[in-house]
Amino acid sequence: MKMASLLGRVFSLFFEYDTPRIVHIRSKKVGVINRLLQLCIVGYVIGYAIIYQKGYQDFDNVQGAITTKLKGVAQTFNLSGDGKNRTWDVNDYVVPPQENNAFFVTTNVIVTPRQQMGLCEEDINVVGANCTDDPSICVKDQPLMTGDGYMTGECINSSRYPGFKVCQVQAWCPTENGNLSAPRPPVIGVAENFTVLIKNNIEFPKFGIKRKNIIGFIDSSELKTCRFIRNDPKYKFCPIFYLHDIVEYADTTFSDIAVKGGVIQILITWDCNLDHAVDTCIPVYSFRRLDTNDTASPGYNFRFARYFLDNGTEIRTLFKAYGIKFILTLQGQAGKFNLKPLIINIGSGLAILGIATVICDIFVLYVLKGKALYKEKKYLEVVGEDAYQRGETARLLPGEHINGRRESLDIPGLNMKSGD
Amino acid sequence: MKMASLLGRVFSLFFEYDTPRIVHIRSKKVGVINRLLQLCIVGYVIGYAIIYQKGYQDFDNVQGAITTKLKGVAQTFNLSGDGKNRTWDVNDYVVPPQENNAFFVTTNVIVTPRQQMGLCEEDINVVGANCTDDPSICVKDQPLMTGDGYMTGECINSSRYPGFKVCQVQAWCPTENGNLSAPRPPVIGVAENFTVLIKNNIEFPKFGIKRKNIIGFIDSSELKTCRFIRNDPKYKFCPIFYLHDIVEYADTTFSDIAVKGGVIQILITWDCNLDHAVDTCIPVYSFRRLDTNDTASPGYNFRFARYFLDNGTEIRTLFKAYGIKFILTLQGQAGKFNLKPLIINIGSGLAILGIATVICDIFVLYVLKGKALYKEKKYLEVVGEDAYQRGETARLLPGEHINGRRESLDIPGLNMKSGD
Amino acid sequence: MKMASLLGRVFSLFFEYDTPRIVHIRSKKVGVINRLLQLCIVGYVIGYAIIYQKGYQDFDNVQGAITTKLKGVAQTFNLSGDGKNRTWDVNDYVVPPQENNAFFVTTNVIVTPRQQMGLCEEDINVVGANCTDDPSICVKDQPLMTGDGYMTGECINSSRYPGFKVCQVQAWCPTENGNLSAPRPPVIGVAENFTVLIKNNIEFPKFGIKRKNIIGFIDSSELKTCRFIRNDPKYKFCPIFYLHDIVEYADTTFSDIAVKGGVIQILITWDCNLDHAVDTCIPVYSFRRLDTNDTASPGYNFRFARYFLDNGTEIRTLFKAYGIKFILTLQGQAGKFNLKPLIINIGSGLAILGIATVICDIFVLYVLKGKALYKEKKYLEVVGEDAYQRGETARLLPGEHINGRRESLDIPGLNMKSGD
Repeated sequence: MKMASLLGRVFSLFFEYDTPRIVHIRSKKVGVINRLLQLCIVGYVIGYAIIYQKGYQDFDNVQGAITTKLKGVAQTFNLSGDGKNRTWDVNDYVVPPQENNAFFVTTNVIVTPRQQMGLCEEDINVVGANCTDDPSICVKDQPLMTGDGYMTGECINSSRYPGFKVCQVQAWCPTENGNLSAPRPPVIGVAENFTVLIKNNIEFPKFGIKRKNIIGFIDSSELKTCRFIRNDPKYKFCPIFYLHDIVEYADTTFSDIAVKGGVIQILITWDCNLDHAVDTCIPVYSFRRLDTNDTASPGYNFRFARYFLDNGTEIRTLFKAYGIKFILTLQGQAGKFNLKPLIINIGSGLAILGIATVICDIFVLYVLKGKALYKEKKYLEVVGEDAYQRGETARLLPGEHINGRRESLDIPGLNMKSGD
Repeated sequence: MKMASLLGRVFSLFFEYDTPRIVHIRSKKVGVINRLLQLCIVGYVIGYAIIYQKGYQDFDNVQGAITTKLKGVAQTFNLSGDGKNRTWDVNDYVVPPQENNAFFVTTNVIVTPRQQMGLCEEDINVVGANCTDDPSICVKDQPLMTGDGYMTGECINSSRYPGFKVCQVQAWCPTENGNLSAPRPPVIGVAENFTVLIKNNIEFPKFGIKRKNIIGFIDSSELKTCRFIRNDPKYKFCPIFYLHDIVEYADTTFSDIAVKGGVIQILITWDCNLDHAVDTCIPVYSFRRLDTNDTASPGYNFRFARYFLDNGTEIRTLFKAYGIKFILTLQGQAGKFNLKPLIINIGSGLAILGIATVICDIFVLYVLKGKALYKEKKYLEVVGEDAYQRGETARLLPGEHINGRRESLDIPGLNMKSGD
Repeated sequence: MKMASLLGRVFSLFFEYDTPRIVHIRSKKVGVINRLLQLCIVGYVIGYAIIYQKGYQDFDNVQGAITTKLKGVAQTFNLSGDGKNRTWDVNDYVVPPQENNAFFVTTNVIVTPRQQMGLCEEDINVVGANCTDDPSICVKDQPLMTGDGYMTGECINSSRYPGFKVCQVQAWCPTENGNLSAPRPPVIGVAENFTVLIKNNIEFPKFGIKRKNIIGFIDSSELKTCRFIRNDPKYKFCPIFYLHDIVEYADTTFSDIAVKGGVIQILITWDCNLDHAVDTCIPVYSFRRLDTNDTASPGYNFRFARYFLDNGTEIRTLFKAYGIKFILTLQGQAGKFNLKPLIINIGSGLAILGIATVICDIFVLYVLKGKALYKEKKYLEVVGEDAYQRGETARLLPGEHINGRRESLDIPGLNMKSGD
């Protein structure tokens, strides 16, 4: 390379290749260890990262819309104390009428009918309402924050609890009776026979694939009469579910959840391998109860009111609705063959192969009987001019230092212990 | 290294360096292959992983709130059979009045006015309601689950379908006429001229950046009169959208979606490079129809009711509302220079460079004419004491075995084939 | 290896091991650099990737349900112009009564009572309604799209703005007075004393762990009276929050947000290390205001209506509700020891260790004084038959070419510059 022009040097860069020099050891012990390690790594990379984890695929998350429609009617008797039957249809027991990725079905209800603005007794269970012992706790124009209204300052006899006195409040009167607990059996226990149609249109935007969850029911009448059955080859694609079945699949019982309500998640999972036929891209439904029963405040309930005008006076009917909140979750992803992730996985696999050499080297150089030989062959020791000397705490003289360097340059046989 | 004390040995560890010995091959063929492979890998790492994929940036996902406000009025005629005009404003056609990341606009409606609790004929389309042939199917106190109420046991003449008989039910009467299909043209077809203001405040918490989707409209009056235009440099930032335009951008037509309803996703994408000026961090709107037209149960509709008191009797008006459900999705991420991902990318890039050597070695050792020479120079063969012998099936005697080892230690020239 | 049968060759593959030949350099300078670089890389891999980033753990995202229940009452005076007090309880100020992962609390309100279908003046602020100068802009049967109804074609005197004329519209009459701004102080400013109970049941499905956000309050009465305090060891687990506190924790003031409304995100973060006791898996609450105050259309409000029958006539009360929209977000993940990610991290760490060698080689071969010696020892130059020659532009004769190859085979001392 002496006297080569710079241009030649740059040119020659393109026509050179560096490859490590290798000690090729023929030894059954280390050979077997090496091959086993390499087998593990290659097995992991090919078997797990590439085949099992589909490392040859590009992925896209599912996107889509879920819409639901409920069917079913219920009948209650004397709910408002009017001695009458009342029919509940979808518009009555689904509140609000539509939600995004959720729906609520009333299963139990406490009705406080015909409330109107006025003065009346506060419920005795409200903190600060029981003035039996001390009428002065009813402070005029102060609200009972966990109660129903602002106090008038009066402490009146309770009509609901004879012998007790409660603060009078300005509120929607009469106030809800806090002593009523959720009726057993539940008022709308028949809700277990209600059905819900779940329509789910999904898309994998990256791959331009669109799918629906209604599969194999071309006939509209057949579709209307089918009901979902988890492990049935045909009816696992039926998009109409009995509420009773959903609750059972979520490992709970309807009579248990219907009284105090609860939250159930319906997961629709689309895990698709688009290297196969697109017909194999199908939804899987799973169900999970999200609220666990606890003593603190179990179940799920909320209140809503309907407002009326009665001869010019605004009145309302208050509903404390217990029920099941169904949360719909869409998840999953699709994979399709793509060269890029495959190359990345192979590349990193090759890089990780180096670990086999590291482990075998330890074995070869420190464990095997022939370690001295292998060390001698593997290593070529070069002593630099600033080499650390044993016992260097006793500082070397400069002369010795130069001497050490001269040695390494002039008398290789002396300071090179191997390879030559 | 002989006789070195342990301490010296440990010290010397810090003053040593191991570097592989290399065969430097000067060959145009393999040199060109090597450099091309390296170029591909470096190009991939720098060009794709670092520059294109912004491998020098740390990322954070967008978080934020989307709120919407609709404007627009419609007029219907004789909808409840009262022969009167009725004006529909936002409060009438958006149900429920507010949703989280969604809004629904009624475009078509079937009204069943003045329902009240009572006895009446079930709709003939309900499964199990047609008792023309067999009156015994009307079982007293049994519900028609896909219908409207509980049967009384009576089989009565149908007023809607003369000559047919249907079960009588206790229900909200009269029941909805199941034979009515969605009106054409849609009752609130003028909804295409409605506008929606979309306010979107976003944040990249990791970088402390807050942005709004209202960009470049300082003047409140200018903001009020602007309308979104996708490819316009100014009006692509206008946050007020014609529903008609949204539907068109989603590759559908308003007259098509308005009759039976549908679901449209509005995606707001904030992909920001915070290494540039923060002004370049802007939203991009895209639109997609999420329900595909199918014969089974196309479109999107739901029912809701308004409850009234009429001279002390509870009545309700039932609405079957067809319309467009708009789902608002916020997505995107911001990137900002960070040393950590850069180092990781360079590191894995260097590791992957090793692949070039693997491929070139195959070429050099198995393909090139000079392969014998290269193999000789690259490999130093060492025969261990437990080396596998050709024809080892004829087991070696112990003596030979030891002998083989002695050779490898004493007569290197014999069992080392290269490098010396 | 000569004359080995193919079978023997394949067998011997399993009993071989290749390990790179190494130049072992004893030099303090390069040794220190090498060890420091290795220390940095090992420190990064072990300290950051494995320990700090928990590279030894498998992760799972949190899933769960959040339900909320509000408590609190407010009183307004003369809101509908009736000179009367009105009590607002939860059912009045939370609209809609339940939402999925969100709730809205009305803090300010403008009421337009007793609207009914009819003819009346349009609000003068509506674009195109002011016909003072030009009555012809009131076009019969044309809608005022940002207004309240369809024009009758009449231009009438404004009762609200004497001296002005406005178009008459068929609409819900009277129309809302667009000149009213949000009342100060806010009508339901007492909402700051309202409380919300947030129940959160979570699950890490992969690890089968279920947790609740109610921790350490076994007694129901103690739970009812507690209030959340951010940094208190006990009350940071109280699931009942004052709205006032939430707003303050979101770095805003209640009086500021209550007038025009706003959007506040409540984040519940479950970052759990399941290698520790499951009791350490606790929720952390954080709060963030998602709408930033801007001049364009600040705050958050929406309108809703209640529909009544008054002597057979449908009327409605229109509410423009300003308030705080609380968005509940569940996030976090749990980690648990798993061998797989640990192996991957160690593997990629070892691969990255190669970078130290690359950097040290540059130092050793181009910077150090002894670079010529090191280069000589590290490299073995082999000249291939197609080697690039300096000055190759003057093409070599075939004879010289073959000669060059013969040299490399026969006279190694001449073309190999090092290692021997």
